[in-house]
Amino acid sequence: MKKLSMTPVSEAIQKVVQAFTNQIQTEVIPITRGFGRVIHSDIGVNHDIPPYRKSTVDGYAVQIKDLVGASQNTPVTLLLKGTVEMGKWFEGELNSGEAIYVPTGGMIPEGANGVVMIEDCNRLEGHVLVSKSVQLNENMILKGGDFKSGTIGLERGERLGASQVSVLAALGYDSVEVLRRPTVAILSTGDELVQPGNAIQEGQIYDSNSYGLSALCASYGLDVVSTSIVKDDKEAFKKSIETLHQEADLILLSGGSSVGEHDYTLEMVKQLPESEVLVHGLAFKPGKPTVLAKAQDKLVIGLPGHPVSALMVMDTVGRALLNQIWRMDIPVRPTAQGILTDSIRAAHGRDSCQMVEVHQDGSSLKVVPIKGKSGMISWMAKASGYVVIKHEVGHFEQDTVVKVHLWEPLKSDDWL
Amino acid sequence: MKKLSMTPVSEAIQKVVQAFTNQIQTEVIPITRGFGRVIHSDIGVNHDIPPYRKSTVDGYAVQIKDLVGASQNTPVTLLLKGTVEMGKWFEGELNSGEAIYVPTGGMIPEGANGVVMIEDCNRLEGHVLVSKSVQLNENMILKGGDFKSGTIGLERGERLGASQVSVLAALGYDSVEVLRRPTVAILSTGDELVQPGNAIQEGQIYDSNSYGLSALCASYGLDVVSTSIVKDDKEAFKKSIETLHQEADLILLSGGSSVGEHDYTLEMVKQLPESEVLVHGLAFKPGKPTVLAKAQDKLVIGLPGHPVSALMVMDTVGRALLNQIWRMDIPVRPTAQGILTDSIRAAHGRDSCQMVEVHQDGSSLKVVPIKGKSGMISWMAKASGYVVIKHEVGHFEQDTVVKVHLWEPLKSDDWL
Repeated sequence: MKKLSMTPVSEAIQKVVQAFTNQIQTEVIPITRGFGRVIHSDIGVNHDIPPYRKSTVDGYAVQIKDLVGASQNTPVTLLLKGTVEMGKWFEGELNSGEAIYVPTGGMIPEGANGVVMIEDCNRLEGHVLVSKSVQLNENMILKGGDFKSGTIGLERGERLGASQVSVLAALGYDSVEVLRRPTVAILSTGDELVQPGNAIQEGQIYDSNSYGLSALCASYGLDVVSTSIVKDDKEAFKKSIETLHQEADLILLSGGSSVGEHDYTLEMVKQLPESEVLVHGLAFKPGKPTVLAKAQDKLVIGLPGHPVSALMVMDTVGRALLNQIWRMDIPVRPTAQGILTDSIRAAHGRDSCQMVEVHQDGSSLKVVPIKGKSGMISWMAKASGYVVIKHEVGHFEQDTVVKVHLWEPLKSDDWL
Repeated sequence: MKKLSMTPVSEAIQKVVQAFTNQIQTEVIPITRGFGRVIHSDIGVNHDIPPYRKSTVDGYAVQIKDLVGASQNTPVTLLLKGTVEMGKWFEGELNSGEAIYVPTGGMIPEGANGVVMIEDCNRLEGHVLVSKSVQLNENMILKGGDFKSGTIGLERGERLGASQVSVLAALGYDSVEVLRRPTVAILSTGDELVQPGNAIQEGQIYDSNSYGLSALCASYGLDVVSTSIVKDDKEAFKKSIETLHQEADLILLSGGSSVGEHDYTLEMVKQLPESEVLVHGLAFKPGKPTVLAKAQDKLVIGLPGHPVSALMVMDTVGRALLNQIWRMDIPVRPTAQGILTDSIRAAHGRDSCQMVEVHQDGSSLKVVPIKGKSGMISWMAKASGYVVIKHEVGHFEQDTVVKVHLWEPLKSDDWL
């Protein structure tokens, strides 16, 4: 009987990445849709930020030498010369012995070299009583002190979080050139599959892979352009995959990727234009029956039909390929260290993922392996995450400290 | 001079949460939009999954007693009785000495009690030579072995990840009742603010808070229904905030929340219908000038104008309020342990967040405090995360091991 070969995962990833060069395309989008995107070129600073000496507090602009020795018991009295209006220069200059009110963000008047906070002052008949001294340039940011004109504000390849979006806006950009993300089409194969929401007949099951994979892709920020089901029928399959190949950059097929009698994935992928099957069979558990192929400039991933295997392969191998081929910079899962309550072992010769639950146990974390078969969908939903056992390591004994890859960061009751 | 009071953060959160009871509403959505949502009621299992004994491999259904002692050198020969078609019962029964081909996911024929993988078999003229024995029920899942009819498939309050979406589909649900998420409106205040993309005049700066806060809210999965800028003009402000109060469940105001001469936020919030200011002034750095208020059933957060402060207050206090009032279950930031390269201290009496960079240093993590003023927007964009110094702790010395809250999980070169 023909057997699946078992390509080591890192070798498989490398092979695919090498086959895809120059996959990078860009697009210009409004910054309001920038979150999570990767910027294509360095973002230049075209003017100083702040464009003027700016107060960081509500307070009074002063000459700091006037306040030497000021305290609660020995306040210093300054003449209130006026008020800085937001967005306007103060007409005139601040001299020794004077104070000018300046709001947070307001322009520091000429002659001032420090700002004392409003909380440390009292007003009295045209005067300000100051009960605290300040340092040179205290409570202000100098012109260009945040970003200097002519420098780089954000570096190419950076992923836009909320603060990077803030920076783009602060620099005056309302749009940004980012790397284009691949579009995805998902096809589930199997005579037994029915779409949820419909009645089920004996021998049928609901398709879950299209939905799980769509959700996973959405969590990566990918645009899923189509999901569909096809019967184990060569003609229908051929037509479907050819359509998907036109529609999307990444084609995910679930089921039919093994060496069974009705496993047509390999054959179907092979007949796509300029098709090149790069990997068939991964040294990975769950997920041995996986096909990785290139057809023209499209990536085809033939995923196992088991829901857990399909999601695991996509979330490890698929994520790595998205990050390396399209430079998506999808963050890896958070990890935590914990103590195993039971021994676990890798499948022979395969890097293996053991689903686990984690429980806080005093100050440490208990890592409990979940018993189950890889065909079970409940298995993964119950798990807090998984422990990877590299094949060369082979096993972890009970009470070993292991790294857990978590679906979600650990809960915290704290407000942080 | 009036000073801001300083309510401890946990007390402030508790006060606001207590003022909002029964904020929970639900909506029914297609499961394709379910990712990240929190389910409202237990999800029942209406039929056994799998609905039949299902093979988890491509292989041959057998009676396990026939294979006792089978090995590479001494294979057992079985009569090939036929093939199970996907989604169909096999007509007839398997007897001792027989094998029936069954694909992954196929129904196990009557009489069989194990499945041997195709990889361990060879076909020869109507017979199958099997070189491996199997255990009872090996390579199959029993009827209801994944989910038993009448049980609970997913528990209320669970947040839908990709595997939970898979489970919903597998159980046949195409829609799901989830908790409604609050809609958000964002208003930046300040005479000096200009929208990015426009020319800037002397004394003006670009509004960045609407954009940063929008991005942060989007990352929480919230729908931002409006963002706008208003001048430091009471009438205009009043009109704007009244409109927002109609539009959204959560109103974020940035700037004007302190005690300066043009800080109208407090006054404006007070005149909203059934307004109740719960907190003005947080024992938190950055973010002391924060207003937390309730107006009818709407939450109003008056955030500081400093971009870093606004984002930090929203990502800590705001996130906690979203999670507790609307039970959104937004995950907390991932954390990591590292060694401080410099001592850091809390602002007097305030729980303080120190922005830090982290660098891998051999097997440990170096945590480098970033020097900067809280008015600087570059400060936060440079940071990998922040260290919290609770006011009662006061400071951390150089070389202490501290917990870092990371904007994003640490990068890994590994494929996992």
